[in-house]
Amino acid sequence: MTRVSGASDLDGTLARLGQAVRARRVAHSVSQEALADLAGIDRSHMGKIERGERNVTFLNIVRIAVALNCKPSDLLSEAGL
Amino acid sequence: MTRVSGASDLDGTLARLGQAVRARRVAHSVSQEALADLAGIDRSHMGKIERGERNVTFLNIVRIAVALNCKPSDLLSEAGL
Repeated sequence: MTRVSGASDLDGTLARLGQAVRARRVAHSVSQEALADLAGIDRSHMGKIERGERNVTFLNIVRIAVALNCKPSDLLSEAGL
Repeated sequence: MTRVSGASDLDGTLARLGQAVRARRVAHSVSQEALADLAGIDRSHMGKIERGERNVTFLNIVRIAVALNCKPSDLLSEAGL
């Protein structure tokens, strides 16, 4: 078991997840706006997710994965998380 | 690309994630309260996460995974997600 300190570099994980979302979106030749619409997520919120500026909820990760035709665990694995 | 409808069974994914957290916690012989303390998550919130009653944030998934000595993608894979 590992105690999670407040100083953990947790914020870096948001950026890595966002980069994985962007990479898979670009690989599918989909615009950020189109992905947001497909996933049912606000467009400006999607931009913040891709830039790692928002603590995305699990259900939004699931929505993004469904829209990108992959599993949520695929996105995390691609982010090295 | 797949459009995510509001009728998608997204809520079922929260229950599956919660079950995976609980299974790994029990395998480590850790109480729910101890895991909450290790992860720095409110104890009652941890109970709701395990029961799939709350849309957990990504950073809390990361905190739980760190506390359980695994990757966030491991938890999702174990949940079949």
